[in-house]
Amino acid sequence: MTMGCDGFVFAGVASGLKKRGGKDLGLILAETPASAAAVFTRNRVQAAPVHLSRERIRSGCCRAVIANSGSANCCTGDAGRKAAQRAAALAAGALGIPEEQVLTASTGVIGLPLEVSRIEAAMPALTAALHPGGIEDFAAAIMTTDTRPKIASAGGTVGGKDFKVLGCAKGAGMIRPAMATLLAFPVPDAAMAPGLLREALATAVDRSFNRITVDGHTSTTDTVILMAGGRSGVKVETPEGCEVFQKALDEVTGALARKIVGDGEGATKLVEVRVAGAPSDAGARAVADAVANSSLVKTALFGQDANWGRVLAAAGRAGVPFEPEKADLYFDEVRMVAGGAGSGPEAEARATEVLKRREFTLTLDLHAVAGSASVLTCDFSIDYVKINADYRS
Amino acid sequence: MTMGCDGFVFAGVASGLKKRGGKDLGLILAETPASAAAVFTRNRVQAAPVHLSRERIRSGCCRAVIANSGSANCCTGDAGRKAAQRAAALAAGALGIPEEQVLTASTGVIGLPLEVSRIEAAMPALTAALHPGGIEDFAAAIMTTDTRPKIASAGGTVGGKDFKVLGCAKGAGMIRPAMATLLAFPVPDAAMAPGLLREALATAVDRSFNRITVDGHTSTTDTVILMAGGRSGVKVETPEGCEVFQKALDEVTGALARKIVGDGEGATKLVEVRVAGAPSDAGARAVADAVANSSLVKTALFGQDANWGRVLAAAGRAGVPFEPEKADLYFDEVRMVAGGAGSGPEAEARATEVLKRREFTLTLDLHAVAGSASVLTCDFSIDYVKINADYRS
Repeated sequence: MTMGCDGFVFAGVASGLKKRGGKDLGLILAETPASAAAVFTRNRVQAAPVHLSRERIRSGCCRAVIANSGSANCCTGDAGRKAAQRAAALAAGALGIPEEQVLTASTGVIGLPLEVSRIEAAMPALTAALHPGGIEDFAAAIMTTDTRPKIASAGGTVGGKDFKVLGCAKGAGMIRPAMATLLAFPVPDAAMAPGLLREALATAVDRSFNRITVDGHTSTTDTVILMAGGRSGVKVETPEGCEVFQKALDEVTGALARKIVGDGEGATKLVEVRVAGAPSDAGARAVADAVANSSLVKTALFGQDANWGRVLAAAGRAGVPFEPEKADLYFDEVRMVAGGAGSGPEAEARATEVLKRREFTLTLDLHAVAGSASVLTCDFSIDYVKINADYRS
Repeated sequence: MTMGCDGFVFAGVASGLKKRGGKDLGLILAETPASAAAVFTRNRVQAAPVHLSRERIRSGCCRAVIANSGSANCCTGDAGRKAAQRAAALAAGALGIPEEQVLTASTGVIGLPLEVSRIEAAMPALTAALHPGGIEDFAAAIMTTDTRPKIASAGGTVGGKDFKVLGCAKGAGMIRPAMATLLAFPVPDAAMAPGLLREALATAVDRSFNRITVDGHTSTTDTVILMAGGRSGVKVETPEGCEVFQKALDEVTGALARKIVGDGEGATKLVEVRVAGAPSDAGARAVADAVANSSLVKTALFGQDANWGRVLAAAGRAGVPFEPEKADLYFDEVRMVAGGAGSGPEAEARATEVLKRREFTLTLDLHAVAGSASVLTCDFSIDYVKINADYRS
């Protein structure tokens, strides 16, 4: 089955930017001008394409995105800024569209100059490869330590007409809930004004990419670009229409976020950390983040060790007031901690069985007030260290 | 050479609390009542001995500390509180001193009940083993994943008389700069009022145990107890005397902090992260903490990869405003980044040589204002994951 979304064409080719070979240059083209919105990393250190795309998205219009892996084009100075502009200009020239309507995104090693000559050389092949079913090639071209391309789609009906949202993302490392994740590109075939798109994207990102972590890092290149075409004939403009659209967009960004954590660097587990009964939702979020980012919790998950004390210890350092002697902790359906103390060897044996699952949920109920939050994380494995000790070599 | 400190005796024995065997129960006795001060973890989840010792230290007086490894006696409910009290009572009975003058400290697995019957059975052997040269046995008894006991000493002269500060500590994991480190016990043979002791200890901890990290965790059992005897005949009471005392105490806590990071779980490198030119000292500290706790920086250190982009990316997510294009980064003497961009392959080759050293310094100069800070960290190795995936098994 070929995946596509009316009005968009995609391509991904190998240009030689990736040291180890493989597809590394991708292009998305909206066949007619699309309205667009984007969110970017909040890191103080930002890659050149982030600066460029943030500037250009202000128009609310985007025709194409050119994205590469291999170099993040970050900490590359003036040459980096020029390289990002040049990449966009090359795409614009080849596609015959205005340069200002081309956004860029890069991912890979920080500090490595972007060899724009390779992009120039690959441009004819890249534009020739554009086709409606090309999203898998595009998704492969933005992968770094990802082991598989990440694609999701969903649909809805507005005013009696069906629309679709197709999206892809890359993740793997430097994933943390502080604005978006590495790169993600949802493209609906519904039409929508840029202002409404911005609201929908902010909501979707807060519910998905802002609630995942792999290693507690904020990347310098995080970019999510949402381009709304309109080929389906659906116009999203009423509150009801926006609600239907939000649901479909959330489904796509949520599925992509989950795929990112499940394919986290070295990950063998996908774990949801739920906190309930916190003093506030924000407090619940802080506690969930502390647990989800704890290397001691994450190594215990890898070791399939129901080391519940580490979960409580991580929760306790979040700076959120709660009474430890009221806390309950569940590993899926197993209540491992009741009233701040362990439930004993039998519960621990059952919790150990839960830990053998590929996916499960840790639920921490603080029994304070009604604040709740949920964060997705993965375990911390020997392979994570191996991948990151050798990443550049 | 036997290490000792006039007026103190120490012991450490194997009581069976440690699953894998070895010394696990330690005792320090001040031969005459000592004035004392202590600092404890700021984690919301605190072990039973932390509650007990915090209560008792208010008197400013302490005769003895009984410490164990194997169980942290944390999240152990009422039974845990009683076990901590019972351990202190057993020591007080055996030593013939008031129970309120005995403090306790525990380290090990969270949630595991403290088998106080083992402490009772070992008490005769423990008190019989007390001797002036026993600090190595005591230091061994508080080890968990530490590979070696940590002891340091320093001296000074006040009013023409010499005094000495002897101290020991354990560390290894759950080490983070948020109040103290796991367990540390400096014992000077100078006399000093509890109020002055508290000030001196707070200063010393801020300069030492609050500036180290292994894994970004705050333990539930962090305890530093400072007991001032007086057998040297030195009385510390003048500002000049306090200054001399502070210097000696700082020397001991600083050396212990360094030993803790150098023996961090799985550590192969001891790295000082220095930040200069930040908007403020607090800002510099936040940036240094972000770099020192970054798993991406730490895995690159393990891989001996001069991946300077990760250092800048970690600095950029600290929430501290700075201009990346002004930043310089040094690996020891090698300027790897100048004005926010890499210095090229020759500098990188030299930086890679620096990374082969066992100890080195990363200096990040933000060229904003004059704020500076320094934090000690270690690398993040495959062994860290192995140690923490199997810690309880």
